[in-house]
Amino acid sequence: MEKVFNFCAGPAMLPVDVLAQAQKELVNWNGLGTSVMEISHRSKEFIKVAEESEQDLRDLLAIPDNYKVLFCQGGARAQFAAVPLNLLGDKTKADYVDAGYWAQSAVAEANKYCEPNVIEAITDCDGKRAVIPASQWPLSDDAAYVHFCPNETIDGIEINDLPITDKPIVADMSSTILSRQIDISKYGVIYAGAQKNIGPAGLTIVIVRDDLLDLAAQSLPSVLNYGVLATQESMFNTPPTYAWYLAGLVFKWLKSNGGIEAMEAHNRKKAAALYEYIDESDFYRNDVHTNNRSLMNVPFQLANSDLDAQFLALADDAGLKALKGHRVVGGMRASIYNAMPLEGVQALVDFMKAFEAKYA
Amino acid sequence: MEKVFNFCAGPAMLPVDVLAQAQKELVNWNGLGTSVMEISHRSKEFIKVAEESEQDLRDLLAIPDNYKVLFCQGGARAQFAAVPLNLLGDKTKADYVDAGYWAQSAVAEANKYCEPNVIEAITDCDGKRAVIPASQWPLSDDAAYVHFCPNETIDGIEINDLPITDKPIVADMSSTILSRQIDISKYGVIYAGAQKNIGPAGLTIVIVRDDLLDLAAQSLPSVLNYGVLATQESMFNTPPTYAWYLAGLVFKWLKSNGGIEAMEAHNRKKAAALYEYIDESDFYRNDVHTNNRSLMNVPFQLANSDLDAQFLALADDAGLKALKGHRVVGGMRASIYNAMPLEGVQALVDFMKAFEAKYA
Repeated sequence: MEKVFNFCAGPAMLPVDVLAQAQKELVNWNGLGTSVMEISHRSKEFIKVAEESEQDLRDLLAIPDNYKVLFCQGGARAQFAAVPLNLLGDKTKADYVDAGYWAQSAVAEANKYCEPNVIEAITDCDGKRAVIPASQWPLSDDAAYVHFCPNETIDGIEINDLPITDKPIVADMSSTILSRQIDISKYGVIYAGAQKNIGPAGLTIVIVRDDLLDLAAQSLPSVLNYGVLATQESMFNTPPTYAWYLAGLVFKWLKSNGGIEAMEAHNRKKAAALYEYIDESDFYRNDVHTNNRSLMNVPFQLANSDLDAQFLALADDAGLKALKGHRVVGGMRASIYNAMPLEGVQALVDFMKAFEAKYA
Repeated sequence: MEKVFNFCAGPAMLPVDVLAQAQKELVNWNGLGTSVMEISHRSKEFIKVAEESEQDLRDLLAIPDNYKVLFCQGGARAQFAAVPLNLLGDKTKADYVDAGYWAQSAVAEANKYCEPNVIEAITDCDGKRAVIPASQWPLSDDAAYVHFCPNETIDGIEINDLPITDKPIVADMSSTILSRQIDISKYGVIYAGAQKNIGPAGLTIVIVRDDLLDLAAQSLPSVLNYGVLATQESMFNTPPTYAWYLAGLVFKWLKSNGGIEAMEAHNRKKAAALYEYIDESDFYRNDVHTNNRSLMNVPFQLANSDLDAQFLALADDAGLKALKGHRVVGGMRASIYNAMPLEGVQALVDFMKAFEAKYA
């Protein structure tokens, strides 16, 4: 097999070691003579997978004891509805910080259930796109919670600070979780689709503070009810067991590779290599201010967009896959999640240099 | 590896050939150098998986053109909420036929959204549990739809007839789909969790008639909205791509093994072998009337339930796995979904005979 590096924004690449182990034990897991995907979620063998994976995630993120970890389905889009339906209680308003496509998608869904106070957070700073500091967000007094998306995957924008508020902070961390250190205790709810830094698509992690489990609207479908899922230990409905098992393997891989501190250092090194080259070149361009550049998703444009198709085709030939930007913005995007080795980023930079040398 | 037969009710066993292929191509699918679970759901390669799997399912079930096929998340339990929220329209009532645990679970969820007219369908017939014929179900005039579960997995009860009604018939086919021939055109909505006859847990199939796509309640979360999912071709949220791919392999396996007609004949042969032996024996017992015995789930009791633990332990030693009955009913249960070979059922019958000879 040709050596390839996969820059897909999600479903994203998984660690090579994890996939190798999954392949080895696919048809005969733990000597049972069956696949892990063929056993009951209530079997002692799977319960062990479930418990170990939760503990490993708790260790990795230093999740305090007063938070529940839920393994759910439906992705962040399901949470766009689940958040207001679980958290509004008797309130009718919530603050929604808008820094891009995914925050806006959350607002569109929240509109069904409450009056979102939308806070436009994008500003211009030295000709680049930047995010207004969280301390300056005009939060409302009567919001049930403050929602934001700390990494806008499509725009390559990352928010690194938090507002000062006594309201629960809710974060869509689909592209942030496990990539850098976060202080869970600052949040009310964190949710994340698995398909970036956790495992395959079809699993969603929700981390929710205990005091927020009992506010659910009567109309909330039970499969999205944090209280129900917490009481049933994420087995109210049959969980996506194979995706959960794979997430468990990813958590063990992270622990054996130094945990989040080491992963963040590694991710900073990868992102720096790419942004530094883009900044030094006149041929490539990234429009995000250095304060808010994403560690995980690096969008870039060619000065001459007529060359986009050529760039993508040659990159693909060189084993650099899925570099096309999101359909709503175009251009190029390199998603460099945890599983992407530094070697992959270096291969991309080398390719970009060679392409520039030829076409500039 | 020891040869085992896995009688788990779900997540259930998958065809050996399917798992072998999945294992072979897990880390390098289609020569791409990546796993199928690492590529974008919007890539041309995955779109091909999605389209082919849908077409194969349409071929297998002879799904008419005026039905949409949706690949969703959340299992049957999500549909317990999705059905009323999608179908009630301006009505407030729906008929719910109760033949067991899963029908009752659907009612419990429906209670949040409508007034379910619960039709008790279980009756006694010659000292056995039976289902009242569908023609005698007391349906109401003002119901938005009629809901039932044609196979009660826990109780081993199957309903083989349909009511005569002009209301949409909605069926939880989690344990029925693909096991025997069904006439899709008789139904408004069919839904099924994948983890019995389709693929791994985490995927749900919904088959819905076109005219029912536009009735959704405003409060319905978009991820459960049939109309939204149909318009977006099941890619409104990132679908569970690996589970979808595996379902596609299962559909191809079914087609190459004669389709549903052949599968039904095979399933009838398996079920007959087991029920015939149980009926002949005084040592084992099945409490369901022959008219309503499940093709897929065969619960049985020992005359002396003190021997249950012994039976299960020795069966497990003999490679006959997951025979313990559901926690709410106890006893034993053999789930014999499509992937279970006749050889497995014969091994179980042989074991039961030997156990009887020793302990009767």
